[in-house]
Amino acid sequence: MKIAILGGTGSIGEGFALRWAKKHEISICSREIDKAVKAADEYKNMLSDKGLCCCGIGGCTNEAGIRDVDVVVLSVPYQGVIQLLKNLKPHFIDQIVISLVVPMKKNDWCEFTPPKQGSAALEIKDILPKTVKVVSAYHNVSAKKLANLELRLDYDVVVCGDDKDAKRTVMKLTKDIKTLQPLDGGGLASSYMIESLTPFLINLAIRNGFSDLGVKFV
Amino acid sequence: MKIAILGGTGSIGEGFALRWAKKHEISICSREIDKAVKAADEYKNMLSDKGLCCCGIGGCTNEAGIRDVDVVVLSVPYQGVIQLLKNLKPHFIDQIVISLVVPMKKNDWCEFTPPKQGSAALEIKDILPKTVKVVSAYHNVSAKKLANLELRLDYDVVVCGDDKDAKRTVMKLTKDIKTLQPLDGGGLASSYMIESLTPFLINLAIRNGFSDLGVKFV
Repeated sequence: MKIAILGGTGSIGEGFALRWAKKHEISICSREIDKAVKAADEYKNMLSDKGLCCCGIGGCTNEAGIRDVDVVVLSVPYQGVIQLLKNLKPHFIDQIVISLVVPMKKNDWCEFTPPKQGSAALEIKDILPKTVKVVSAYHNVSAKKLANLELRLDYDVVVCGDDKDAKRTVMKLTKDIKTLQPLDGGGLASSYMIESLTPFLINLAIRNGFSDLGVKFV
Repeated sequence: MKIAILGGTGSIGEGFALRWAKKHEISICSREIDKAVKAADEYKNMLSDKGLCCCGIGGCTNEAGIRDVDVVVLSVPYQGVIQLLKNLKPHFIDQIVISLVVPMKKNDWCEFTPPKQGSAALEIKDILPKTVKVVSAYHNVSAKKLANLELRLDYDVVVCGDDKDAKRTVMKLTKDIKTLQPLDGGGLASSYMIESLTPFLINLAIRNGFSDLGVKFV
Protein backbone atom coordinates (compact mmCIF):
# COMPACT_ATOMS: atom_id res chain seq x y z
CA MET A 1 0.00 0.00 0.00
CA LYS A 2 1.24 3.52 -0.74
CA ILE A 3 1.09 5.81 2.27
CA ALA A 4 1.88 9.54 2.33
CA ILE A 5 2.60 11.10 5.71
CA LEU A 6 1.90 14.83 5.89
CA GLY A 7 4.01 16.11 8.75
CA GLY A 8 6.20 13.08 8.16
CA THR A 9 9.29 14.83 9.46
CA GLY A 10 7.72 15.22 12.93
CA SER A 11 8.04 12.65 15.68
CA ILE A 12 4.69 10.89 15.25
CA GLY A 13 5.33 10.80 11.48
CA GLU A 14 8.71 9.19 12.12
CA GLY A 15 7.06 6.45 14.18
CA PHE A 16 4.53 5.58 11.47
CA ALA A 17 7.21 5.57 8.76
CA LEU A 18 9.46 3.23 10.76
CA ARG A 19 6.62 0.91 11.78
CA TRP A 20 4.88 0.68 8.38
CA ALA A 21 7.93 0.64 6.07
CA LYS A 22 8.29 -3.12 6.41
CA LYS A 23 5.04 -3.74 4.51
CA HIS A 24 4.23 -0.45 2.79
CA GLU A 25 5.73 2.23 0.52
CA ILE A 26 6.06 5.44 2.50
CA SER A 27 6.25 9.05 1.26
CA ILE A 28 7.50 11.53 3.83
CA CYS A 29 5.87 14.82 2.91
CA SER A 30 6.86 18.33 3.89
CA ARG A 31 6.52 21.84 2.48
CA GLU A 32 10.31 21.75 2.08
CA ILE A 33 11.52 18.98 -0.21
CA ASP A 34 15.05 19.01 1.29
CA LYS A 35 13.71 18.45 4.78
CA ALA A 36 11.49 15.60 3.53
CA VAL A 37 14.32 13.85 1.67
CA LYS A 38 16.67 14.22 4.65
CA ALA A 39 14.11 12.72 7.05
CA ALA A 40 13.34 9.85 4.65
CA ASP A 41 17.07 9.05 4.37
CA GLU A 42 17.44 9.10 8.14
CA TYR A 43 14.51 6.70 8.60
CA LYS A 44 15.94 4.33 5.96
CA ASN A 45 19.31 4.37 7.72
CA MET A 46 17.69 3.71 11.09
CA LEU A 47 15.93 0.63 9.71
CA SER A 48 19.01 -0.55 7.88
CA ASP A 49 21.16 -0.13 11.04
CA LYS A 50 18.73 -2.43 12.81
CA GLY A 51 18.89 -4.92 9.92
CA LEU A 52 15.20 -4.37 9.16
CA CYS A 53 13.83 -4.59 5.63
CA CYS A 54 12.04 -1.67 4.10
CA CYS A 55 9.66 -1.42 1.12
CA GLY A 56 10.86 2.09 0.44
CA ILE A 57 10.75 5.47 2.12
CA GLY A 58 11.04 8.56 -0.05
CA GLY A 59 10.84 12.29 0.63
CA CYS A 60 8.75 14.71 -1.40
CA THR A 61 6.62 17.85 -1.29
CA ASN A 62 3.11 17.66 0.09
CA GLU A 63 1.59 18.14 -3.39
CA ALA A 64 3.65 15.39 -5.01
CA GLY A 65 3.35 13.06 -2.04
CA ILE A 66 -0.41 12.77 -1.84
CA ARG A 67 -0.90 12.09 -5.56
CA ASP A 68 -1.34 8.41 -6.45
CA VAL A 69 -1.28 7.11 -2.89
CA ASP A 70 -3.89 4.96 -1.17
CA VAL A 71 -3.64 6.58 2.24
CA VAL A 72 -2.72 10.08 3.43
CA VAL A 73 -1.87 10.42 7.13
CA LEU A 74 -2.44 13.87 8.65
CA SER A 75 0.13 14.04 11.43
CA VAL A 76 0.00 17.81 11.52
CA PRO A 77 -1.11 20.08 14.41
CA TYR A 78 -4.65 21.49 14.25
CA GLN A 79 -3.21 24.99 13.94
CA GLY A 80 -2.23 24.90 10.28
CA VAL A 81 -3.94 21.73 9.04
CA ILE A 82 -7.11 23.42 7.83
CA GLN A 83 -5.27 25.96 5.65
CA LEU A 84 -2.87 23.24 4.46
CA LEU A 85 -5.75 21.03 3.31
CA LYS A 86 -7.52 23.92 1.59
CA ASN A 87 -4.31 24.52 -0.39
CA LEU A 88 -3.87 20.83 -1.18
CA LYS A 89 -7.51 20.16 -2.07
CA PRO A 90 -6.93 19.98 -5.87
CA HIS A 91 -4.53 17.06 -5.32
CA PHE A 92 -7.02 14.95 -3.38
CA ILE A 93 -9.11 12.49 -5.41
CA ASP A 94 -10.35 9.43 -3.51
CA GLN A 95 -7.59 8.70 -1.01
CA ILE A 96 -8.22 7.47 2.52
CA VAL A 97 -7.25 10.35 4.82
CA ILE A 98 -6.36 9.39 8.37
CA SER A 99 -6.82 12.30 10.77
CA LEU A 100 -4.79 12.29 13.98
CA VAL A 101 -5.69 15.93 14.46
CA VAL A 102 -6.78 17.20 17.87
CA PRO A 103 -7.98 20.78 18.28
CA MET A 104 -6.80 21.82 21.74
CA LYS A 105 -5.22 24.69 23.62
CA LYS A 106 -2.97 24.71 26.65
CA ASN A 107 -3.18 27.19 29.47
CA ASP A 108 -2.63 25.70 32.90
CA TRP A 109 -4.20 22.51 31.54
CA CYS A 110 -4.98 21.20 28.09
CA GLU A 111 -8.48 21.87 26.85
CA PHE A 112 -10.37 20.38 23.90
CA THR A 113 -11.42 23.22 21.59
CA PRO A 114 -13.54 21.63 18.85
CA PRO A 115 -14.62 23.56 15.75
CA LYS A 116 -18.32 24.13 15.07
CA GLN A 117 -18.59 20.72 13.38
CA GLY A 118 -17.79 19.09 16.77
CA SER A 119 -14.45 17.53 15.82
CA ALA A 120 -11.40 18.13 13.64
CA ALA A 121 -12.28 15.01 11.60
CA LEU A 122 -15.69 16.41 10.62
CA GLU A 123 -14.17 19.80 9.79
CA ILE A 124 -11.57 18.09 7.59
CA LYS A 125 -14.29 16.06 5.87
CA ASP A 126 -16.10 19.34 5.06
CA ILE A 127 -12.98 20.74 3.34
CA LEU A 128 -11.95 17.75 1.22
CA PRO A 129 -13.73 16.42 -1.90
CA LYS A 130 -16.72 14.16 -1.14
CA THR A 131 -14.89 11.21 -2.75
CA VAL A 132 -12.13 11.30 -0.12
CA LYS A 133 -12.71 8.93 2.80
CA VAL A 134 -11.81 10.50 6.13
CA VAL A 135 -11.01 8.14 8.98
CA SER A 136 -10.11 9.28 12.49
CA ALA A 137 -7.50 7.31 14.48
CA TYR A 138 -4.20 7.23 16.44
CA HIS A 139 -4.86 10.41 18.46
CA ASN A 140 -3.70 8.82 21.69
CA VAL A 141 -0.61 6.95 20.54
CA SER A 142 2.62 8.28 22.05
CA ALA A 143 4.95 9.63 19.34
CA LYS A 144 8.01 8.71 21.37
CA LYS A 145 6.89 5.15 21.98
CA LEU A 146 5.77 4.69 18.35
CA ALA A 147 9.23 5.70 17.13
CA ASN A 148 10.96 3.29 19.54
CA LEU A 149 10.91 0.02 17.60
CA GLU A 150 12.04 -1.98 20.64
CA LEU A 151 8.77 -1.18 22.40
CA ARG A 152 5.63 -3.29 22.27
CA LEU A 153 2.74 -0.84 22.03
CA ASP A 154 0.02 -2.33 24.19
CA TYR A 155 -2.62 0.26 23.27
CA ASP A 156 -6.09 0.20 21.85
CA VAL A 157 -6.73 2.40 18.84
CA VAL A 158 -10.30 3.58 18.33
CA VAL A 159 -11.04 4.03 14.62
CA CYS A 160 -13.99 6.19 13.50
CA GLY A 161 -15.18 6.64 9.93
CA ASP A 162 -18.25 6.66 7.69
CA ASP A 163 -16.78 4.51 4.90
CA LYS A 164 -16.69 0.88 6.01
CA ASP A 165 -13.97 -0.24 3.59
CA ALA A 166 -11.75 2.70 4.51
CA LYS A 167 -12.25 1.99 8.19
CA ARG A 168 -11.39 -1.68 7.63
CA THR A 169 -8.18 -0.65 5.82
CA VAL A 170 -7.13 1.57 8.73
CA MET A 171 -7.91 -1.19 11.22
CA LYS A 172 -5.69 -3.49 9.17
CA LEU A 173 -2.91 -0.88 9.07
CA THR A 174 -3.23 -0.65 12.86
CA LYS A 175 -2.68 -4.39 13.21
CA ASP A 176 0.47 -4.01 11.09
CA ILE A 177 1.92 -2.10 14.06
CA LYS A 178 2.55 -4.74 16.67
CA THR A 179 0.73 -4.87 19.14
CA LEU A 180 -1.73 -2.06 18.56
CA GLN A 181 -5.30 -3.26 18.81
CA PRO A 182 -7.90 -1.53 16.61
CA LEU A 183 -11.45 -1.02 17.88
CA ASP A 184 -14.39 0.15 15.78
CA GLY A 185 -15.46 3.51 17.23
CA GLY A 186 -18.40 3.99 14.86
CA GLY A 187 -18.99 6.84 12.43
CA LEU A 188 -16.98 10.03 12.07
CA ALA A 189 -19.58 11.80 14.23
CA SER A 190 -18.07 9.93 17.21
CA SER A 191 -14.58 11.27 16.52
CA TYR A 192 -15.00 14.08 19.09
CA MET A 193 -14.87 11.42 21.77
CA ILE A 194 -11.40 10.10 20.85
CA GLU A 195 -10.13 13.58 20.00
CA SER A 196 -11.20 14.94 23.39
CA LEU A 197 -9.45 12.04 25.13
CA THR A 198 -6.08 13.50 24.12
CA PRO A 199 -6.09 16.66 26.27
CA PHE A 200 -7.67 14.59 29.06
CA LEU A 201 -4.81 12.05 28.87
CA ILE A 202 -2.19 14.81 28.79
CA ASN A 203 -3.68 16.40 31.93
CA LEU A 204 -3.96 13.02 33.62
CA ALA A 205 -0.30 12.24 32.84
CA ILE A 206 0.90 15.60 34.22
CA ARG A 207 -1.26 15.37 37.37
CA ASN A 208 -0.15 11.82 38.16
CA GLY A 209 3.52 12.07 37.23
CA PHE A 210 3.65 10.01 34.02
CA SER A 211 5.58 11.11 30.94
CA ASP A 212 2.65 10.16 28.71
CA LEU A 213 -0.45 8.01 28.83
CA GLY A 214 -2.21 5.96 26.19
CA VAL A 215 -5.42 4.07 26.64
CA LYS A 216 -6.45 0.43 26.81
CA PHE A 217 -10.01 -0.80 27.15
CA VAL A 218 -10.30 -3.77 29.50
CA MET B 1 -15.06 4.55 57.93
CA LYS B 2 -18.88 4.70 57.70
CA ILE B 3 -20.16 4.49 54.15
CA ALA B 4 -23.80 4.82 53.04
CA ILE B 5 -24.68 3.50 49.60
CA LEU B 6 -27.73 5.13 48.03
CA GLY B 7 -29.00 2.66 45.47
CA GLY B 8 -27.23 0.01 47.53
CA THR B 9 -29.67 -2.71 46.49
CA GLY B 10 -28.62 -2.32 42.82
CA SER B 11 -25.79 -4.26 41.22
CA ILE B 12 -23.06 -1.63 41.45
CA GLY B 13 -24.10 -0.96 45.07
CA GLU B 14 -23.76 -4.67 45.80
CA GLY B 15 -20.22 -4.67 44.45
CA PHE B 16 -19.12 -1.74 46.62
CA ALA B 17 -20.73 -3.24 49.73
CA LEU B 18 -19.02 -6.61 49.21
CA ARG B 19 -15.64 -5.07 48.39
CA TRP B 20 -15.57 -2.44 51.17
CA ALA B 21 -17.20 -4.39 54.02
CA LYS B 22 -13.88 -5.93 55.03
CA LYS B 23 -12.55 -2.56 56.21
CA HIS B 24 -15.60 -0.31 56.51
CA GLU B 25 -19.09 -0.13 58.02
CA ILE B 26 -21.64 -0.16 55.23
CA SER B 27 -25.24 1.12 55.20
CA ILE B 28 -27.34 -0.16 52.31
CA CYS B 29 -29.90 2.57 51.67
CA SER B 30 -33.19 2.36 49.86
CA ARG B 31 -36.54 4.15 49.89
CA GLU B 32 -37.97 0.86 51.18
CA ILE B 33 -36.45 -0.27 54.47
CA ASP B 34 -37.46 -3.94 53.92
CA LYS B 35 -35.64 -4.03 50.59
CA ALA B 36 -32.54 -2.46 52.15
CA VAL B 37 -32.46 -4.88 55.10
CA LYS B 38 -32.99 -7.88 52.81
CA ALA B 39 -30.12 -6.82 50.52
CA ALA B 40 -27.81 -6.14 53.50
CA ASP B 41 -28.55 -9.63 54.89
CA GLU B 42 -27.86 -11.19 51.49
CA TYR B 43 -24.52 -9.42 51.20
CA LYS B 44 -23.53 -10.49 54.74
CA ASN B 45 -24.42 -14.10 53.92
CA MET B 46 -22.44 -13.96 50.67
CA LEU B 47 -19.35 -12.80 52.56
CA SER B 48 -19.87 -15.30 55.34
CA ASP B 49 -20.31 -18.16 52.80
CA LYS B 50 -16.91 -17.24 51.41
CA GLY B 51 -15.41 -17.12 54.90
CA LEU B 52 -14.69 -13.40 54.55
CA CYS B 53 -14.81 -11.05 57.52
CA CYS B 54 -17.13 -8.09 57.53
CA CYS B 55 -17.15 -4.89 59.62
CA GLY B 56 -20.90 -4.74 59.36
CA ILE B 57 -23.51 -4.24 56.65
CA GLY B 58 -26.89 -2.86 57.67
CA GLY B 59 -30.00 -1.85 55.76
CA CYS B 60 -31.87 1.40 56.34
CA THR B 61 -33.86 4.16 54.68
CA ASN B 62 -32.07 6.81 52.66
CA GLU B 63 -32.75 9.47 55.31
CA ALA B 64 -31.41 7.38 58.20
CA GLY B 65 -28.51 5.99 56.18
CA ILE B 66 -26.81 9.20 55.22
CA ARG B 67 -26.88 10.71 58.75
CA ASP B 68 -23.61 10.34 60.70
CA VAL B 69 -21.65 8.70 57.88
CA ASP B 70 -18.34 9.84 56.42
CA VAL B 71 -19.10 8.95 52.82
CA VAL B 72 -22.31 8.74 50.76
CA VAL B 73 -22.07 6.83 47.47
CA LEU B 74 -24.58 7.83 44.80
CA SER B 75 -25.07 4.64 42.80
CA VAL B 76 -28.39 5.82 41.43
CA PRO B 77 -29.33 6.50 37.77
CA TYR B 78 -29.30 10.13 36.62
CA GLN B 79 -33.05 9.94 36.08
CA GLY B 80 -34.19 10.28 39.67
CA VAL B 81 -30.99 11.29 41.46
CA ILE B 82 -31.61 15.05 41.29
CA GLN B 83 -35.09 14.86 42.85
CA LEU B 84 -33.81 12.31 45.40
CA LEU B 85 -31.03 14.65 46.53
CA LYS B 86 -33.36 17.65 46.71
CA ASN B 87 -35.55 15.60 49.08
CA LEU B 88 -32.59 14.40 51.13
CA LYS B 89 -30.83 17.80 51.32
CA PRO B 90 -31.78 18.48 54.99
CA HIS B 91 -29.92 15.29 56.00
CA PHE B 92 -26.66 16.29 54.37
CA ILE B 93 -24.13 18.12 56.55
CA ASP B 94 -20.47 17.71 55.55
CA GLN B 95 -20.28 14.20 54.15
CA ILE B 96 -18.12 13.23 51.20
CA VAL B 97 -20.53 12.42 48.36
CA ILE B 98 -19.17 10.15 45.64
CA SER B 99 -21.06 10.60 42.37
CA LEU B 100 -21.05 7.71 39.92
CA VAL B 101 -23.87 9.38 38.04
CA VAL B 102 -23.80 9.60 34.24
CA PRO B 103 -26.47 11.57 32.39
CA MET B 104 -27.04 9.66 29.17
CA LYS B 105 -29.77 8.45 26.86
CA LYS B 106 -29.91 5.43 24.62
CA ASN B 107 -31.41 5.37 21.15
CA ASP B 108 -29.48 3.30 18.65
CA TRP B 109 -26.35 4.23 20.59
CA CYS B 110 -25.68 5.73 23.98
CA GLU B 111 -25.27 9.47 24.09
CA PHE B 112 -23.91 11.72 26.85
CA THR B 113 -26.59 14.26 27.76
CA PRO B 114 -25.02 16.62 30.30
CA PRO B 115 -27.07 19.18 32.23
CA LYS B 116 -26.34 22.90 31.79
CA GLN B 117 -23.58 22.72 34.43
CA GLY B 118 -21.62 20.41 32.08
CA SER B 119 -21.71 17.27 34.23
CA ALA B 120 -23.89 15.44 36.73
CA ALA B 121 -21.24 16.01 39.43
CA LEU B 122 -21.45 19.79 39.07
CA GLU B 123 -25.26 19.70 39.05
CA ILE B 124 -25.20 17.59 42.23
CA LYS B 125 -22.77 20.04 43.86
CA ASP B 126 -25.22 22.86 43.07
CA ILE B 127 -28.04 21.03 44.90
CA LEU B 128 -26.25 19.96 48.09
CA PRO B 129 -25.10 22.23 50.97
CA LYS B 130 -21.78 24.00 50.33
CA THR B 131 -20.19 22.05 53.22
CA VAL B 132 -20.71 18.71 51.41
CA LYS B 133 -17.68 17.58 49.41
CA VAL B 134 -18.65 16.11 46.05
CA VAL B 135 -16.17 13.75 44.42
CA SER B 136 -16.71 12.11 41.03
CA ALA B 137 -15.44 8.53 40.49
CA TYR B 138 -16.16 4.89 39.49
CA HIS B 139 -18.29 5.72 36.43
CA ASN B 140 -16.56 3.14 34.29
CA VAL B 141 -16.30 0.22 36.68
CA SER B 142 -18.35 -2.79 35.62
CA ALA B 143 -21.08 -3.57 38.19
CA LYS B 144 -20.92 -7.27 37.33
CA LYS B 145 -17.15 -7.49 37.74
CA LEU B 146 -17.17 -5.41 40.93
CA ALA B 147 -19.66 -7.82 42.51
CA ASN B 148 -17.57 -10.87 41.52
CA LEU B 149 -15.08 -11.12 44.37
CA GLU B 150 -12.99 -13.73 42.52
CA LEU B 151 -12.08 -11.15 39.89
CA ARG B 152 -9.03 -8.89 39.98
CA LEU B 153 -10.20 -5.51 38.70
CA ASP B 154 -7.36 -4.24 36.60
CA TYR B 155 -8.90 -0.81 35.96
CA ASP B 156 -7.87 2.76 36.47
CA VAL B 157 -10.32 4.97 38.32
CA VAL B 158 -10.15 8.68 37.58
CA VAL B 159 -11.14 10.73 40.63
CA CYS B 160 -12.24 14.37 40.25
CA GLY B 161 -13.04 16.76 43.08
CA ASP B 162 -12.43 20.26 44.40
CA ASP B 163 -11.70 19.27 48.03
CA LYS B 164 -8.22 17.76 48.24
CA ASP B 165 -8.79 15.80 51.46
CA ALA B 166 -12.06 14.35 50.16
CA LYS B 167 -10.36 13.36 46.91
CA ARG B 168 -7.53 11.73 48.86
CA THR B 169 -10.08 9.74 50.92
CA VAL B 170 -11.79 8.48 47.75
CA MET B 171 -8.43 7.55 46.21
CA LYS B 172 -7.67 5.57 49.39
CA LEU B 173 -11.09 3.86 49.23
CA THR B 174 -10.28 2.97 45.63
CA LYS B 175 -7.05 1.26 46.68
CA ASP B 176 -9.07 -0.75 49.23
CA ILE B 177 -10.64 -2.48 46.21
CA LYS B 178 -7.89 -4.69 44.85
CA THR B 179 -6.50 -3.92 42.25
CA LEU B 180 -8.24 -0.70 41.24
CA GLN B 181 -5.77 2.07 40.58
CA PRO B 182 -6.87 5.65 41.40
CA LEU B 183 -5.70 8.55 39.25
CA ASP B 184 -6.13 12.21 40.10
CA GLY B 185 -8.40 13.67 37.41
CA GLY B 186 -8.28 17.24 38.73
CA GLY B 187 -11.20 19.40 39.85
CA LEU B 188 -14.90 18.63 39.57
CA ALA B 189 -15.01 20.76 36.42
CA SER B 190 -13.20 17.87 34.67
CA SER B 191 -15.87 15.34 35.65
CA TYR B 192 -17.64 15.68 32.27
CA MET B 193 -14.67 13.89 30.74
CA ILE B 194 -15.01 10.72 32.83
CA GLU B 195 -18.80 10.86 32.73
CA SER B 196 -18.83 11.08 28.94
CA LEU B 197 -16.47 8.09 28.72
CA THR B 198 -19.28 5.82 29.95
CA PRO B 199 -21.62 6.03 26.92
CA PHE B 200 -18.51 5.91 24.70
CA LEU B 201 -17.34 2.68 26.39
CA ILE B 202 -20.83 1.15 26.15
CA ASN B 203 -20.96 1.90 22.41
CA LEU B 204 -17.42 0.60 21.94
CA ALA B 205 -18.28 -2.64 23.77
CA ILE B 206 -21.42 -3.22 21.67
CA ARG B 207 -19.68 -2.40 18.37
CA ASN B 208 -16.72 -4.68 19.09
CA GLY B 209 -18.54 -7.59 20.72
CA PHE B 210 -17.49 -7.21 24.36
CA SER B 211 -19.92 -7.60 27.26
CA ASP B 212 -18.49 -4.51 28.92
CA LEU B 213 -15.36 -2.37 28.80
CA GLY B 214 -13.48 -0.49 31.48
CA VAL B 215 -10.46 1.68 30.94
CA LYS B 216 -6.80 1.49 31.77
CA PHE B 217 -4.27 4.22 31.04
CA VAL B 218 -0.93 2.84 29.85
